[in-house]
Amino acid sequence: MDEGDEHSIKKVFGEQVRRFRKAKGHSQEDLADMCGLDRTYIGSVERGERNVSLVNIYKIAIALGVSPKELVN
Amino acid sequence: MDEGDEHSIKKVFGEQVRRFRKAKGHSQEDLADMCGLDRTYIGSVERGERNVSLVNIYKIAIALGVSPKELVN
Repeated sequence: MDEGDEHSIKKVFGEQVRRFRKAKGHSQEDLADMCGLDRTYIGSVERGERNVSLVNIYKIAIALGVSPKELVN
Repeated sequence: MDEGDEHSIKKVFGEQVRRFRKAKGHSQEDLADMCGLDRTYIGSVERGERNVSLVNIYKIAIALGVSPKELVN
């Protein structure tokens, strides 16, 4: 796995988060509050800049009302 | 989400990794080599001690020949 692959993994994850967030009608700030995470962190996740940890994947999934596996699909 | 929940998330993930690794007949060392990760790291993942990042979830899943979502199921 090279740097391009790692970039793609983070980018696809961020796109999934953004897609579900918008589908639920939440702002980044709403989602951040529901997760107990920072709004700037959620922004960077959605831009594919973060190598999100397992626990934060669950926090985001729970806040979005989806299964964690839907985010890493 | 409290510390107990976070512990459970990591523990369940580790159990999934161990289950798939054994099902494939690999040692921790085999899996570590296939992932490009350290054997002691794989051991601590399986014991539920690691908050594994998205990219490492993919590395482990690819090495095990499973979908990443099967590990976070």
